[in-house]
Amino acid sequence: MSYYFTTTIDAPFEAAVARTRQALAEEGFGVITEIDVAKTLKTKIDVDFRPYLILGACNPTLAHEALMLEDKVGTMLPCNVVVQAAGSDRTEISAIDPVASMQAIGNPQLAEKAVLVAGKLKAALARI
Amino acid sequence: MSYYFTTTIDAPFEAAVARTRQALAEEGFGVITEIDVAKTLKTKIDVDFRPYLILGACNPTLAHEALMLEDKVGTMLPCNVVVQAAGSDRTEISAIDPVASMQAIGNPQLAEKAVLVAGKLKAALARI
Repeated sequence: MSYYFTTTIDAPFEAAVARTRQALAEEGFGVITEIDVAKTLKTKIDVDFRPYLILGACNPTLAHEALMLEDKVGTMLPCNVVVQAAGSDRTEISAIDPVASMQAIGNPQLAEKAVLVAGKLKAALARI
Repeated sequence: MSYYFTTTIDAPFEAAVARTRQALAEEGFGVITEIDVAKTLKTKIDVDFRPYLILGACNPTLAHEALMLEDKVGTMLPCNVVVQAAGSDRTEISAIDPVASMQAIGNPQLAEKAVLVAGKLKAALARI
């Protein structure tokens, strides 16, 4: 079982980021965290890295339901979507599969929610 | 196998947050994301929730090494530390166990890094 869903599109990085945000919004996800990995690595340890952004996607209603079922599920929230350059005009977008990552939790009711969220993340990737 | 490390301390929420940040810094983690879950749920879906903060902890050197081993590991970064109120003068702090969450990845070299990070997170919790 893979731990992510992924798609690669013919678009430069910045355009792909915009399309990813739009697709996530259309599937009911807000982006509540954002890590510019290349910038962080450059600033903190002076390492050059390709354009690589981690967007934290969150559907507030489903997150609330998950928190009611499992009070430490916040250790696995939000659902991350990685946008990374794959050449000059190609960009890869990968979303965590919460069914895979939350397997370690072993809560069957939470697993049902994870299936729902996984479906929405997959749908968002298909929209990009 | 549990997916988190946890400790509960006799301190009100805000003081516990400060102590958690300090302990993470002492173990080499920067806090690169921060989600005020109570505020987010109130703003987005008008739900009242107890004080609950998700801190995204990152050791840049180890994160870089992980990214070199597994290009989609960003779907599981940073390592989250949840600080949540457990009564008026008690606060619970829980950190993800990256060994458990990254099990789904199935990359033995990455698993070695996860053991290292898990040790540092455990040490941070012991310092709080």
